[in-house]
Amino acid sequence: MDLQFKAADGSKRYKITKIYVPEGGSFQAGAPLLKAESGKMNTVVKAEQAGTLKKLLVKEGQEIGSGEIFAQAEYAAGTSAAGGQRDTAGTSAAASQRDAAKASPNPAFSLFGKKEELSCEIAVVGAGPGGYEAAIYAAKQGKDVILIEKSKVGGTCLNVGCIPTKAIVNSAEKYHMLSGLEDIGVSCGQASFDMHRVIGHKNQVVEQLRGGIESLLEANGVRLVRGTAAFQGPKELLVSQGLNRTTVKAQHVIIATGSRIADLPIPGIHGRNVLNSTTALDLEENFDSIAIVGGGVIGMEFAGIYASLGKRVHVLEYEKQILPTTDPDLVEVLTEDLKGQVDIRTGVRVQEIRESENGQCIVAFESGGRTKYLVADKVLVAVGRSANLDGLKLEKAGVDLTENKRSIAVNGSMETSVPGIYAIGDVTGKIQLAHAASHQGLVAVDCILGKDRSMEYDFIPSVIFSRVEIATVGRTERELKQAGIACNVSRFPFAANGKALTMEEGRGFVKLIAREEDGKLVGAAVAGPDASNLISVLTLALTNGLTPEAIISTVFPHPTLGEVIHEAALGLTVGAIHYHE
Amino acid sequence: MDLQFKAADGSKRYKITKIYVPEGGSFQAGAPLLKAESGKMNTVVKAEQAGTLKKLLVKEGQEIGSGEIFAQAEYAAGTSAAGGQRDTAGTSAAASQRDAAKASPNPAFSLFGKKEELSCEIAVVGAGPGGYEAAIYAAKQGKDVILIEKSKVGGTCLNVGCIPTKAIVNSAEKYHMLSGLEDIGVSCGQASFDMHRVIGHKNQVVEQLRGGIESLLEANGVRLVRGTAAFQGPKELLVSQGLNRTTVKAQHVIIATGSRIADLPIPGIHGRNVLNSTTALDLEENFDSIAIVGGGVIGMEFAGIYASLGKRVHVLEYEKQILPTTDPDLVEVLTEDLKGQVDIRTGVRVQEIRESENGQCIVAFESGGRTKYLVADKVLVAVGRSANLDGLKLEKAGVDLTENKRSIAVNGSMETSVPGIYAIGDVTGKIQLAHAASHQGLVAVDCILGKDRSMEYDFIPSVIFSRVEIATVGRTERELKQAGIACNVSRFPFAANGKALTMEEGRGFVKLIAREEDGKLVGAAVAGPDASNLISVLTLALTNGLTPEAIISTVFPHPTLGEVIHEAALGLTVGAIHYHE
Repeated sequence: MDLQFKAADGSKRYKITKIYVPEGGSFQAGAPLLKAESGKMNTVVKAEQAGTLKKLLVKEGQEIGSGEIFAQAEYAAGTSAAGGQRDTAGTSAAASQRDAAKASPNPAFSLFGKKEELSCEIAVVGAGPGGYEAAIYAAKQGKDVILIEKSKVGGTCLNVGCIPTKAIVNSAEKYHMLSGLEDIGVSCGQASFDMHRVIGHKNQVVEQLRGGIESLLEANGVRLVRGTAAFQGPKELLVSQGLNRTTVKAQHVIIATGSRIADLPIPGIHGRNVLNSTTALDLEENFDSIAIVGGGVIGMEFAGIYASLGKRVHVLEYEKQILPTTDPDLVEVLTEDLKGQVDIRTGVRVQEIRESENGQCIVAFESGGRTKYLVADKVLVAVGRSANLDGLKLEKAGVDLTENKRSIAVNGSMETSVPGIYAIGDVTGKIQLAHAASHQGLVAVDCILGKDRSMEYDFIPSVIFSRVEIATVGRTERELKQAGIACNVSRFPFAANGKALTMEEGRGFVKLIAREEDGKLVGAAVAGPDASNLISVLTLALTNGLTPEAIISTVFPHPTLGEVIHEAALGLTVGAIHYHE
Repeated sequence: MDLQFKAADGSKRYKITKIYVPEGGSFQAGAPLLKAESGKMNTVVKAEQAGTLKKLLVKEGQEIGSGEIFAQAEYAAGTSAAGGQRDTAGTSAAASQRDAAKASPNPAFSLFGKKEELSCEIAVVGAGPGGYEAAIYAAKQGKDVILIEKSKVGGTCLNVGCIPTKAIVNSAEKYHMLSGLEDIGVSCGQASFDMHRVIGHKNQVVEQLRGGIESLLEANGVRLVRGTAAFQGPKELLVSQGLNRTTVKAQHVIIATGSRIADLPIPGIHGRNVLNSTTALDLEENFDSIAIVGGGVIGMEFAGIYASLGKRVHVLEYEKQILPTTDPDLVEVLTEDLKGQVDIRTGVRVQEIRESENGQCIVAFESGGRTKYLVADKVLVAVGRSANLDGLKLEKAGVDLTENKRSIAVNGSMETSVPGIYAIGDVTGKIQLAHAASHQGLVAVDCILGKDRSMEYDFIPSVIFSRVEIATVGRTERELKQAGIACNVSRFPFAANGKALTMEEGRGFVKLIAREEDGKLVGAAVAGPDASNLISVLTLALTNGLTPEAIISTVFPHPTLGEVIHEAALGLTVGAIHYHE
């Protein structure tokens, strides 16, 4: 039968950039057959059914138009269909992939489920930012990759983590900003906040990005298998979805199953008005007050959102300080900003959550040996995540766990105790950050490709998007002090930066920490405007061993926030120009 | 007589950090005598009159309280006063310096003016960002520095350039932003814009920063001499202010007199409704339409401001493209954004500006050989700046000009044709950017200090704060193409960046340019959200010769805008993860 090219945009000519199957070669259902591009739009033609490519009528580099026949094939099942399955990949061309998937017929459907056997070079379990990026990165380098996902592509980060919170933070910040516009000559009437639309916008962003990832997987020829994976042996996985069973045989496996919200033994934690970081993202109901259990990154991001929306917010933190691993001077910039709006209680232990007859939540907590109570409309529990290991049947592969049995043990190449099986991201219990997972994924793939790479954990940045952004990289002052390492610390305030003042963002400072012994930069942090971007300047410097002198020799444009970094570097040598201590 | 310490904050104890004059030493009027600090507040006690320090009653490191006597002195004029002149330096403790200056008595006042002779190691002429930073940097390294300024400290940049425009851009952008909030769930009533308050805020920021600089000069012991400087010989300057004359003898001179708006030969350019970049900053009057002559950086920043405020804006640019030295793909992001709001006409030559009887401006311009007309309420002429050389009497010092006689010729050390006389900033005609001037100043001072330094112009970033921020560093694609240098270019769009989408800022892209020959990064640019900060990541990378691989090995936090740089670097190797061409 003839295989027909169907372009995404019928009016244009496409150029064939890749032919995946040679003449005489066989292909599986869903396998990419041909890729063609038109400007920035890519089209990948996939096989509707398994079969053999009998005759190829085109060459790479040749032009092709919609409706033209590019090959003749024979389907294994003997059936024939007029053309390949088409999908379009582009930056934001998200929808078509999902539509195509929905439209895809399933000729092997049966009451007893479908059974399929697939093989590949690399199987990645889990399509979060660790897994899907590893899959794409490997595919780009010519590897045949299968990506297995039981839920939504994008994982916690995209669906119920980093991205949706940032979308809500954006709405909340802009609402909060409205109250300060008079001073700069802008006035607006009564402001209001529509949680239904906020969440609608958040969902739209998440869906757009998710669709984008699905398109990218497609465009890169990564086969997405939906279902729950369980090892059947070191290099064999059984993927179950409903009654369907797919066996995936792989030369290499990357486990990237992530983490989930831990179930804490606090009585009342499953109450009607008790939220977690996932359910809070979809809460449209209006309320006046909220008690947040846990003043870590997640807790403080939500505290910032609710404070900006004018709610009465209480934060209950077990440690002596909110954001316990962050240097206190940075944390102070945030607490100073939230003063009067957020009631922060540290060194307290939440004991129980009860619901009153009139619908209020009562949080009982221990503070200084006494039990105290807080009453709030809602409670948000923002503590603890644990590695997703359930159902993986790691024992069948012989993969060892870490000593505490909570995560998968890996070496510097991200390889587990079983050669050829790698693990990355939250499931390794190393660092619960999306970008750490992604980077571990690149390292794992590079190692599979035979490159000599090892994961470095020294300079992984961390960002907190609360009412003040706090971003850190490298070691903290406190940590260095405890380790007895003498350091020089340079701080430069945004209050002395012209751009910050034009933006009315004079809060906070940048900090550079150099080891006294050799002047090497070992830590850096920013609390203040745009910390999330400025930290990349510092991360680049620290990762690549740049000296304060190298930063000083770099010209930072004026007037920009980044000048604070130049000044802080001067502070480690002759002294900052615009700040005098 | 007794010299009394008067603290800025009477309630606190201060610690003496520096004593400037030894026992038996003499001092001039205004010279710093003692510095003390309390937390982050510094107080410098200065001499009210010239005299001799007879007896010192305190030591460095000792504590002192307000009202305590710290020394006994004898004034040269024989008069005595109860205590030194006090000034406070701190990050934002700006006002006190000016108050002190106002309050300062002038015992030598006479109808015929005051005559004074001063000497120093380094005299800096001009207190713009080039001059004042050089002065502070030199003083920090122990040099005795005099800074001469005829007008306001901070120069063009602070008073009528970078800073005030950014303050107005901030107001205009936030006003513009209000119209897009509905989509993210925030609504506000009828928005309005109060130009009087906008300019008030702008002035307050400028004054705060100017006061800060004056305090910093003070705290660093830089003597500020007000007046217009003229060379009397290679190392001697005469500073005139009114009837006063101060002769400044210096071992080294740094000329940093900057530039001023050039007077163009366009008839009607001095009309009542014709503004320039300085007068536009104080325009409180309301108007509906404006024609901007010149689509360069200044013109396009104002175009962005007025478009955001809902004015009808016309831009008339002589070259074939607005922002003529910028790559067209970057410019397109801006023109796309301004479409429908700003009427951009390129390749046109403004011939004349006339005012109609009913108060409108008529701009006559040539376009395609025909004369055409535009009518607008206001005209803003935003073209051309020329070096400030007037009155300097360079010939008396023997300082050579450049070939076109428009600026001062300098070598890589910023030294002029006369050894010991340096020139920096706009007056050298190299690059008209504040940060270039500042950097040249640091280089000049380092050379005076005997360090082996040379000014490098390869990687001086440039930022345009229009409705879209455009920032560039290194060479442009067009330039490289013209030079016949084969390059690989990687672009990554903000539309594929999660953080940008949460902020609804999916416009624009980042671009990395690597030389094909050796893979070296030679150019980079960003058009889009926060380009002004992201460019510092790129500038740091390019200045320090980091490779795409070094950028790839750096972990960029998720979700942040900076990830686009990581992706663009991947685009130069295996290909971006989140973008498929």
